[in-house]
Amino acid sequence: MKTRIGILGYGNLGRGIECAVRETSDMELCAVFTRRDPSSITLKTENVPVVSVNDIQDWTDKIDVLVLCGGSATDLPVQTPEYAKYFNVIDSFDTHANIPQHFAAVDEAAKANNHAAMISVGWDPGMFSLIRAYSSAILPNGKDYTFWGKGVSQGHSDAVRRIEGVANAKQYTIPVDAALEAVRNGENPELSTRQKHTRECFVVLKEGADAAKVEKEIVEMPNYFADYDTTVHFISAEEFARDHSGLAHGGFVFRSGSTGIDHEHKHVIEFSLKLDSNPEFTSSVIIAYARAIRRLAEKGDFGCKTVFDIPPVLLSEMSPEEMRSHLL
Amino acid sequence: MKTRIGILGYGNLGRGIECAVRETSDMELCAVFTRRDPSSITLKTENVPVVSVNDIQDWTDKIDVLVLCGGSATDLPVQTPEYAKYFNVIDSFDTHANIPQHFAAVDEAAKANNHAAMISVGWDPGMFSLIRAYSSAILPNGKDYTFWGKGVSQGHSDAVRRIEGVANAKQYTIPVDAALEAVRNGENPELSTRQKHTRECFVVLKEGADAAKVEKEIVEMPNYFADYDTTVHFISAEEFARDHSGLAHGGFVFRSGSTGIDHEHKHVIEFSLKLDSNPEFTSSVIIAYARAIRRLAEKGDFGCKTVFDIPPVLLSEMSPEEMRSHLL
Repeated sequence: MKTRIGILGYGNLGRGIECAVRETSDMELCAVFTRRDPSSITLKTENVPVVSVNDIQDWTDKIDVLVLCGGSATDLPVQTPEYAKYFNVIDSFDTHANIPQHFAAVDEAAKANNHAAMISVGWDPGMFSLIRAYSSAILPNGKDYTFWGKGVSQGHSDAVRRIEGVANAKQYTIPVDAALEAVRNGENPELSTRQKHTRECFVVLKEGADAAKVEKEIVEMPNYFADYDTTVHFISAEEFARDHSGLAHGGFVFRSGSTGIDHEHKHVIEFSLKLDSNPEFTSSVIIAYARAIRRLAEKGDFGCKTVFDIPPVLLSEMSPEEMRSHLL
Repeated sequence: MKTRIGILGYGNLGRGIECAVRETSDMELCAVFTRRDPSSITLKTENVPVVSVNDIQDWTDKIDVLVLCGGSATDLPVQTPEYAKYFNVIDSFDTHANIPQHFAAVDEAAKANNHAAMISVGWDPGMFSLIRAYSSAILPNGKDYTFWGKGVSQGHSDAVRRIEGVANAKQYTIPVDAALEAVRNGENPELSTRQKHTRECFVVLKEGADAAKVEKEIVEMPNYFADYDTTVHFISAEEFARDHSGLAHGGFVFRSGSTGIDHEHKHVIEFSLKLDSNPEFTSSVIIAYARAIRRLAEKGDFGCKTVFDIPPVLLSEMSPEEMRSHLL
């Protein structure tokens, strides 16, 4: 029987989940739940109902895994523990500092109601976390480096858009090539915030706004920009729409370490992602782990999990025998 | 209590295991078992006994995990199932085509004797297998590429050394830059054997040997060289000793795939290793998984495993809470 997937929230991530389900042969999308008026939403998939979130409890027997597609700031801290009472759930919670609290809340709800749950699935947290875990266990005498980009930072774009005189803005985080090269060469550099990433802003001004003042406010903004080399470009609304509507992202994780009786041998592990669509890739990771969550729930392995708890064999449509023959 | 490690076979891999144990704080090397005269072997670690393999059964209560450091051709197919009767065992069996049979033999012996066992641990099979498994589950609509090198192929070096007139030889496998770039750019090329790797041989001739004849025999050797562009260099024994005694290796795994309603978004996952010492890195992977094997044995989870069966949380000295706080 196919794994029956439900989606809560039909934004970029929800649409990505819809696409990712279509790439599998062992899953089907059963319903999309929304806080909006269901009649205002048209799915890309035919014959799948859009349902008001108020009616979600009618679906507890019809959904194997509910994918929570809300934001980490306010949606998921409430939604994931709440819906873990009624469903096996999975989310992409990405506020690193709050993961322990979120884990505890989801774990309690899932265990109390015999559900399997998973948080913080995607690429960072997610794939990058896996690489950090594997490579630090393998090279205990070493150093981790994570670089993000080139890609859009939603938080930094929002911060620029809040400045007076700004009509629209997009902020790209860009890893510094010289830093990447030094790490790749096993030099184990100590890198300041400024040496790791630069920031590039594309800004559409409101009529009559003072460009110099906006630029100064951006580059001097504490936490967001003051510690970085930031470039600001002012462009027209047309250029913005044409050149900056994409959702590409990516990044790099390195572990650089040494082995040998005198640590005489250096090793560099490098993992990188180059993604045309951040939400669609995140969705693809989530759907692979949704397969694992259903399998755990069937075995009665309840409670909250992260990528660290899941053996790779649970992610694949292949049987363990096929994996050993074809992938090992 | 520390995990007590035993080593069977004190070659390059055995010495690598000895070094890798020293990097942990939760393991100790208890004994090295050998088929040679134990008095002929001096370890780098003080106060660890070297024991004849004939006496290994005296150690069944003193070793938590026995690491089998023999070769895949003749040693491991016999040793791993045999010693799985008496110990929890782990090996680096790397004859891809024979993995299913080897798995079955080890699984039967381990289950019959309540031991946890693991085969084919290292970087390929091993880390590369993990990346292939994760990334094919995440991007089902995609294509895998594995490249090896630059590094020494033991099998190809042996093949050259068997040629009449050759005193010594080393063969390097080198990935073709243009192929790497095409894959990295998401072009999904169809690559022939010749387009993926080149081979470079450094050969010391015996006195009076015919260089032209040796070169022809190398480049035309079926299976090993005929399908590749091969370069042969003749060098002196001194140059050979000076420049070609290292054990560096490495390689690349890619998954290039697409997502979206019309597969309109491309994604490239890249994983690479640059290793100064192939046996020491392999050993480091094995020791991380030896930690998992002990934990599985303590839970009563017996039988044969591969990297696909082990959740990352079992590899780390960190607690699950620490991993969620620091690595997720």
